[in-house]
Amino acid sequence: MTPQENGKGLVQIFTGNGKGKTTAALGTVLRATGHSLKVFIVFFMKGDYAYGEYSALAKLPNVETASFGFRKFTDPSNIKPEEKEQAKAALETARKAVLSGNYNLVVLDEVNVALSYNLIELDDVIRLIKEKPSHVELILTGRYANSRLIDMADLVTEMVKVKHPFDKGIKARKGIEY
Amino acid sequence: MTPQENGKGLVQIFTGNGKGKTTAALGTVLRATGHSLKVFIVFFMKGDYAYGEYSALAKLPNVETASFGFRKFTDPSNIKPEEKEQAKAALETARKAVLSGNYNLVVLDEVNVALSYNLIELDDVIRLIKEKPSHVELILTGRYANSRLIDMADLVTEMVKVKHPFDKGIKARKGIEY
Repeated sequence: MTPQENGKGLVQIFTGNGKGKTTAALGTVLRATGHSLKVFIVFFMKGDYAYGEYSALAKLPNVETASFGFRKFTDPSNIKPEEKEQAKAALETARKAVLSGNYNLVVLDEVNVALSYNLIELDDVIRLIKEKPSHVELILTGRYANSRLIDMADLVTEMVKVKHPFDKGIKARKGIEY
Repeated sequence: MTPQENGKGLVQIFTGNGKGKTTAALGTVLRATGHSLKVFIVFFMKGDYAYGEYSALAKLPNVETASFGFRKFTDPSNIKPEEKEQAKAALETARKAVLSGNYNLVVLDEVNVALSYNLIELDDVIRLIKEKPSHVELILTGRYANSRLIDMADLVTEMVKVKHPFDKGIKARKGIEY
Protein backbone atom coordinates (compact mmCIF):
# COMPACT_ATOMS: atom_id res chain seq x y z
CA MET A 1 0.00 0.00 0.00
CA THR A 2 1.46 3.37 -0.95
CA PRO A 3 1.15 6.19 1.58
CA GLN A 4 -1.44 7.83 -0.67
CA GLU A 5 -3.75 4.84 -0.63
CA ASN A 6 -4.60 4.84 3.07
CA GLY A 7 -7.18 7.62 3.02
CA LYS A 8 -7.29 10.90 4.85
CA GLY A 9 -4.74 11.52 7.56
CA LEU A 10 -5.83 13.32 10.70
CA VAL A 11 -4.07 15.50 13.20
CA GLN A 12 -3.80 13.91 16.65
CA ILE A 13 -2.62 15.53 19.86
CA PHE A 14 -1.60 13.72 23.04
CA THR A 15 -1.17 16.25 25.83
CA GLY A 16 -1.63 16.61 29.60
CA ASN A 17 0.48 16.01 32.69
CA GLY A 18 0.00 12.23 32.80
CA LYS A 19 2.06 9.35 31.54
CA GLY A 20 1.44 7.91 28.12
CA LYS A 21 1.79 10.72 25.58
CA THR A 22 5.00 9.66 23.85
CA THR A 23 4.13 6.09 24.79
CA ALA A 24 0.79 6.25 22.99
CA ALA A 25 2.51 7.74 19.95
CA LEU A 26 4.94 4.81 19.98
CA GLY A 27 2.01 2.38 20.26
CA THR A 28 0.41 4.04 17.24
CA VAL A 29 3.70 3.64 15.37
CA LEU A 30 3.86 -0.05 16.30
CA ARG A 31 0.31 -0.59 15.08
CA ALA A 32 0.96 1.32 11.86
CA THR A 33 4.00 -0.80 11.02
CA GLY A 34 1.80 -3.88 11.42
CA HIS A 35 -0.09 -2.58 8.40
CA SER A 36 3.14 -1.75 6.54
CA LEU A 37 2.53 1.97 6.81
CA LYS A 38 5.54 4.26 6.57
CA VAL A 39 6.46 6.27 9.65
CA PHE A 40 8.78 9.15 10.48
CA ILE A 41 9.35 10.20 14.10
CA VAL A 42 11.00 13.46 15.08
CA PHE A 43 12.04 13.69 18.72
CA PHE A 44 12.19 17.41 19.50
CA MET A 45 13.74 17.37 22.94
CA LYS A 46 15.40 14.08 23.71
CA GLY A 47 18.96 14.33 22.39
CA ASP A 48 20.96 11.15 22.13
CA TYR A 49 19.69 9.72 25.38
CA ALA A 50 19.58 5.94 24.92
CA TYR A 51 15.85 5.56 25.31
CA GLY A 52 14.59 2.00 24.99
CA GLU A 53 12.41 3.21 22.16
CA TYR A 54 15.39 3.85 19.91
CA SER A 55 16.65 0.29 19.88
CA ALA A 56 13.12 -1.07 19.64
CA LEU A 57 12.14 1.36 16.87
CA ALA A 58 15.27 0.46 14.93
CA LYS A 59 13.97 -3.10 14.68
CA LEU A 60 10.62 -2.08 13.21
CA PRO A 61 10.22 -2.01 9.45
CA ASN A 62 9.36 1.26 7.71
CA VAL A 63 10.21 3.50 10.67
CA GLU A 64 12.71 6.34 10.45
CA THR A 65 13.65 8.55 13.38
CA ALA A 66 15.51 11.81 13.91
CA SER A 67 16.41 13.13 17.32
CA PHE A 68 17.13 16.68 18.41
CA GLY A 69 17.58 18.71 21.55
CA PHE A 70 19.25 17.82 24.79
CA ARG A 71 18.76 15.19 27.41
CA LYS A 72 18.29 17.72 30.15
CA PHE A 73 16.40 20.81 29.20
CA THR A 74 17.91 23.56 31.27
CA ASP A 75 15.90 26.57 32.29
CA PRO A 76 12.73 27.66 30.46
CA SER A 77 13.34 31.23 31.60
CA ASN A 78 16.85 31.24 30.18
CA ILE A 79 16.75 29.43 26.85
CA LYS A 80 20.12 28.73 25.25
CA PRO A 81 20.65 29.56 21.56
CA GLU A 82 21.59 25.93 20.82
CA GLU A 83 18.29 24.77 22.28
CA LYS A 84 16.42 27.00 19.85
CA GLU A 85 18.61 25.86 16.97
CA GLN A 86 17.92 22.22 17.76
CA ALA A 87 14.17 22.77 17.96
CA LYS A 88 14.15 24.68 14.67
CA ALA A 89 16.15 21.89 13.02
CA ALA A 90 13.65 19.37 14.39
CA LEU A 91 10.72 21.30 12.92
CA GLU A 92 12.48 21.66 9.58
CA THR A 93 13.13 17.91 9.51
CA ALA A 94 9.48 17.23 10.35
CA ARG A 95 8.40 19.65 7.63
CA LYS A 96 10.48 17.89 4.99
CA ALA A 97 9.17 14.49 6.06
CA VAL A 98 5.54 15.67 6.02
CA LEU A 99 5.72 17.51 2.71
CA SER A 100 7.64 14.70 1.00
CA GLY A 101 4.45 12.66 1.02
CA ASN A 102 6.54 9.55 1.56
CA TYR A 103 5.13 8.78 5.01
CA ASN A 104 1.69 7.80 6.26
CA LEU A 105 2.41 8.90 9.79
CA VAL A 106 4.73 11.61 11.10
CA VAL A 107 5.18 12.00 14.87
CA LEU A 108 6.38 15.33 16.30
CA ASP A 109 7.34 14.16 19.77
CA GLU A 110 7.36 16.91 22.45
CA VAL A 111 6.64 19.60 19.88
CA ASN A 112 4.05 21.03 22.26
CA VAL A 113 6.71 21.62 24.90
CA ALA A 114 9.09 23.16 22.37
CA LEU A 115 6.29 25.54 21.38
CA SER A 116 5.35 26.44 24.93
CA TYR A 117 8.98 27.38 25.62
CA ASN A 118 9.02 29.51 22.44
CA LEU A 119 11.79 27.43 20.92
CA ILE A 120 9.81 27.43 17.68
CA GLU A 121 7.08 29.63 16.22
CA LEU A 122 3.41 28.70 16.49
CA ASP A 123 2.79 30.03 12.97
CA ASP A 124 5.33 27.56 11.55
CA VAL A 125 3.52 24.61 13.14
CA ILE A 126 0.15 25.90 11.94
CA ARG A 127 1.55 26.26 8.43
CA LEU A 128 2.86 22.69 8.54
CA ILE A 129 -0.58 21.38 9.51
CA LYS A 130 -2.26 23.44 6.77
CA GLU A 131 0.20 22.37 4.09
CA LYS A 132 0.40 18.68 4.93
CA PRO A 133 -0.64 16.30 2.15
CA SER A 134 -4.09 15.00 3.00
CA HIS A 135 -2.99 11.38 3.36
CA VAL A 136 -0.42 12.16 6.06
CA GLU A 137 -1.39 11.49 9.69
CA LEU A 138 0.28 13.83 12.19
CA ILE A 139 0.74 13.17 15.89
CA LEU A 140 1.85 16.03 18.14
CA THR A 141 2.82 15.10 21.69
CA GLY A 142 3.78 16.92 24.86
CA ARG A 143 2.32 18.90 27.71
CA TYR A 144 0.92 22.38 27.27
CA ALA A 145 -0.63 21.87 23.82
CA ASN A 146 -1.43 25.24 22.29
CA SER A 147 -5.16 25.99 22.12
CA ARG A 148 -4.96 26.97 18.44
CA LEU A 149 -3.45 23.58 17.63
CA ILE A 150 -6.17 21.88 19.67
CA ASP A 151 -8.72 23.78 17.57
CA MET A 152 -7.09 22.54 14.37
CA ALA A 153 -6.65 18.93 15.50
CA ASP A 154 -9.12 16.15 14.76
CA LEU A 155 -8.35 14.01 17.79
CA VAL A 156 -7.15 15.38 21.11
CA THR A 157 -6.53 13.32 24.23
CA GLU A 158 -5.42 14.67 27.55
CA MET A 159 -3.43 12.27 29.70
CA VAL A 160 -4.32 13.18 33.26
CA LYS A 161 -2.12 12.08 36.12
CA VAL A 162 -4.27 10.37 38.73
CA LYS A 163 -1.35 8.84 40.61
CA HIS A 164 2.35 8.68 39.76
CA PRO A 165 5.10 6.74 41.52
CA PHE A 166 7.59 9.61 41.12
CA ASP A 167 5.38 11.36 43.69
CA LYS A 168 6.39 8.60 46.10
CA GLY A 169 10.08 9.02 45.28
CA ILE A 170 10.29 6.04 42.94
CA LYS A 171 12.70 6.83 40.12
CA ALA A 172 12.23 6.20 36.40
CA ARG A 173 13.13 2.63 35.55
CA LYS A 174 15.11 1.50 32.52
CA GLY A 175 12.93 -0.42 30.08
CA ILE A 176 9.69 0.89 31.47
CA GLU A 177 9.79 4.69 31.53
CA TYR A 178 12.71 5.15 29.13
CA MET B 1 19.05 -9.44 31.94
CA THR B 2 16.76 -11.94 33.62
CA PRO B 3 13.27 -10.76 34.57
CA GLN B 4 14.32 -10.76 38.22
CA GLU B 5 17.19 -8.34 37.65
CA ASN B 6 15.17 -5.32 36.57
CA GLY B 7 14.03 -4.18 40.00
CA LYS B 8 10.59 -3.74 41.43
CA GLY B 9 7.66 -3.95 39.07
CA LEU B 10 4.77 -1.56 39.57
CA VAL B 11 1.08 -1.74 38.81
CA GLN B 12 0.02 0.71 36.12
CA ILE B 13 -3.53 1.56 35.05
CA PHE B 14 -4.51 3.35 31.84
CA THR B 15 -8.18 4.25 32.01
CA GLY B 16 -10.62 6.96 30.87
CA ASN B 17 -12.80 7.62 27.83
CA GLY B 18 -10.02 8.94 25.61
CA LYS B 19 -7.83 7.36 22.99
CA GLY B 20 -4.47 5.91 23.95
CA LYS B 21 -5.03 3.33 26.68
CA THR B 22 -4.22 0.14 24.76
CA THR B 23 -1.95 2.25 22.56
CA ALA B 24 0.12 3.43 25.52
CA ALA B 25 0.37 -0.15 26.75
CA LEU B 26 1.68 -1.15 23.32
CA GLY B 27 4.18 1.71 23.42
CA THR B 28 5.38 0.49 26.81
CA VAL B 29 5.77 -2.98 25.34
CA LEU B 30 7.78 -1.61 22.42
CA ARG B 31 10.06 0.29 24.79
CA ALA B 32 10.48 -2.77 27.04
CA THR B 33 11.55 -4.96 24.13
CA GLY B 34 14.21 -2.37 23.31
CA HIS B 35 15.76 -3.31 26.64
CA SER B 36 15.28 -7.04 25.99
CA LEU B 37 12.63 -7.34 28.68
CA LYS B 38 10.17 -10.22 28.40
CA VAL B 39 6.53 -9.36 27.81
CA PHE B 40 3.19 -11.19 27.89
CA ILE B 41 0.04 -9.47 26.65
CA VAL B 42 -3.45 -10.81 27.34
CA PHE B 43 -6.18 -9.23 25.26
CA PHE B 44 -9.40 -9.73 27.25
CA MET B 45 -11.99 -8.57 24.77
CA LYS B 46 -10.59 -8.42 21.26
CA GLY B 47 -11.10 -11.89 19.80
CA ASP B 48 -9.33 -12.73 16.59
CA TYR B 49 -9.92 -9.34 14.99
CA ALA B 50 -6.88 -8.67 12.81
CA TYR B 51 -5.67 -5.62 14.68
CA GLY B 52 -2.50 -4.09 13.30
CA GLU B 53 -0.92 -4.70 16.67
CA TYR B 54 -0.93 -8.44 16.22
CA SER B 55 1.23 -8.50 13.14
CA ALA B 56 3.49 -5.81 14.55
CA LEU B 57 3.77 -7.53 17.94
CA ALA B 58 4.62 -10.80 16.25
CA LYS B 59 7.73 -9.17 14.84
CA LEU B 60 8.98 -7.98 18.22
CA PRO B 61 11.40 -10.16 20.17
CA ASN B 62 10.39 -11.49 23.60
CA VAL B 63 6.69 -10.70 23.24
CA GLU B 64 3.97 -13.32 23.62
CA THR B 65 0.29 -12.63 23.22
CA ALA B 66 -2.98 -14.42 23.97
CA SER B 67 -6.32 -13.13 22.78
CA PHE B 68 -9.78 -13.80 24.19
CA GLY B 69 -13.31 -12.54 23.85
CA PHE B 70 -15.20 -11.39 20.83
CA ARG B 71 -14.77 -8.68 18.28
CA LYS B 72 -18.13 -7.16 19.01
CA PHE B 73 -19.17 -7.20 22.61
CA THR B 74 -22.89 -7.62 22.56
CA ASP B 75 -25.06 -6.23 25.34
CA PRO B 76 -23.68 -5.42 28.80
CA SER B 77 -27.16 -5.99 30.25
CA ASN B 78 -27.40 -9.42 28.67
CA ILE B 79 -24.01 -11.08 29.03
CA LYS B 80 -23.60 -14.37 27.18
CA PRO B 81 -22.08 -17.37 29.00
CA GLU B 82 -19.32 -17.65 26.39
CA GLU B 83 -18.33 -14.06 27.05
CA LYS B 84 -17.83 -14.85 30.74
CA GLU B 85 -15.95 -18.02 29.89
CA GLN B 86 -13.59 -16.14 27.60
CA ALA B 87 -12.91 -13.46 30.19
CA LYS B 88 -12.26 -16.05 32.88
CA ALA B 89 -9.88 -17.89 30.56
CA ALA B 90 -8.10 -14.60 29.85
CA LEU B 91 -7.64 -13.93 33.56
CA GLU B 92 -6.41 -17.46 34.17
CA THR B 93 -3.88 -17.06 31.35
CA ALA B 94 -2.74 -13.74 32.80
CA ARG B 95 -2.44 -15.31 36.24
CA LYS B 96 -0.22 -18.10 34.94
CA ALA B 97 1.99 -15.63 33.08
CA VAL B 98 2.34 -13.36 36.11
CA LEU B 99 3.00 -16.11 38.64
CA SER B 100 5.46 -17.90 36.35
CA GLY B 101 7.92 -15.09 36.99
CA ASN B 102 9.16 -15.48 33.43
CA TYR B 103 8.03 -12.04 32.28
CA ASN B 104 9.04 -8.52 33.25
CA LEU B 105 5.84 -7.01 31.98
CA VAL B 106 2.34 -8.48 31.74
CA VAL B 107 -0.41 -6.42 30.09
CA LEU B 108 -4.06 -7.16 30.89
CA ASP B 109 -5.66 -5.29 28.03
CA GLU B 110 -9.30 -4.22 28.63
CA VAL B 111 -9.41 -6.05 31.96
CA ASN B 112 -11.08 -2.99 33.47
CA VAL B 113 -13.99 -3.30 31.06
CA ALA B 114 -14.29 -7.04 31.67
CA LEU B 115 -14.49 -6.26 35.39
CA SER B 116 -17.02 -3.49 35.01
CA TYR B 117 -19.28 -5.86 33.07
CA ASN B 118 -18.87 -8.47 35.82
CA LEU B 119 -17.33 -10.96 33.42
CA ILE B 120 -14.70 -11.64 36.07
CA GLU B 121 -14.50 -11.18 39.83
CA LEU B 122 -12.82 -8.16 41.37
CA ASP B 123 -11.40 -10.33 44.15
CA ASP B 124 -9.56 -12.47 41.60
CA VAL B 125 -7.85 -9.44 40.10
CA ILE B 126 -6.95 -8.11 43.55
CA ARG B 127 -5.49 -11.50 44.44
CA LEU B 128 -3.42 -11.50 41.24
CA ILE B 129 -1.97 -8.09 42.10
CA LYS B 130 -1.21 -9.17 45.68
CA GLU B 131 0.43 -12.42 44.62
CA LYS B 132 2.50 -11.12 41.72
CA PRO B 133 6.27 -11.60 42.04
CA SER B 134 7.78 -8.25 42.97
CA HIS B 135 9.80 -7.92 39.74
CA VAL B 136 6.73 -8.19 37.49
CA GLU B 137 5.27 -4.98 36.08
CA LEU B 138 1.51 -5.12 35.48
CA ILE B 139 -0.46 -2.87 33.15
CA LEU B 140 -4.25 -2.88 33.35
CA THR B 141 -6.09 -1.03 30.60
CA GLY B 142 -9.66 -0.09 29.80
CA ARG B 143 -12.37 2.34 30.79
CA TYR B 144 -14.15 2.20 34.12
CA ALA B 145 -11.15 1.18 36.23
CA ASN B 146 -12.37 -0.05 39.59
CA SER B 147 -11.61 2.32 42.47
CA ARG B 148 -10.12 -0.47 44.58
CA LEU B 149 -7.66 -1.26 41.78
CA ILE B 150 -6.82 2.44 41.48
CA ASP B 151 -6.07 2.44 45.21
CA MET B 152 -3.73 -0.53 44.78
CA ALA B 153 -1.97 0.77 41.66
CA ASP B 154 1.26 2.74 41.70
CA LEU B 155 0.69 4.69 38.50
CA VAL B 156 -2.73 5.66 37.20
CA THR B 157 -3.37 7.75 34.12
CA GLU B 158 -6.77 8.80 32.87
CA MET B 159 -7.00 9.35 29.13
CA VAL B 160 -9.58 12.10 28.72
CA LYS B 161 -11.28 12.67 25.40
CA VAL B 162 -10.98 16.32 24.49
CA LYS B 163 -11.97 15.85 20.86
CA HIS B 164 -12.52 12.70 18.81
CA PRO B 165 -13.07 12.36 15.06
CA PHE B 166 -15.70 9.63 15.55
CA ASP B 167 -17.84 12.47 16.93
CA LYS B 168 -17.66 14.00 13.45
CA GLY B 169 -18.61 10.71 11.81
CA ILE B 170 -15.10 9.75 10.76
CA LYS B 171 -14.68 6.00 11.01
CA ALA B 172 -11.82 4.03 12.51
CA ARG B 173 -8.99 3.71 10.01
CA LYS B 174 -6.94 0.61 9.37
CA GLY B 175 -3.37 1.01 10.55
CA ILE B 176 -4.13 3.94 12.79
CA GLU B 177 -6.93 3.01 15.19
CA TYR B 178 -6.73 -0.77 14.76
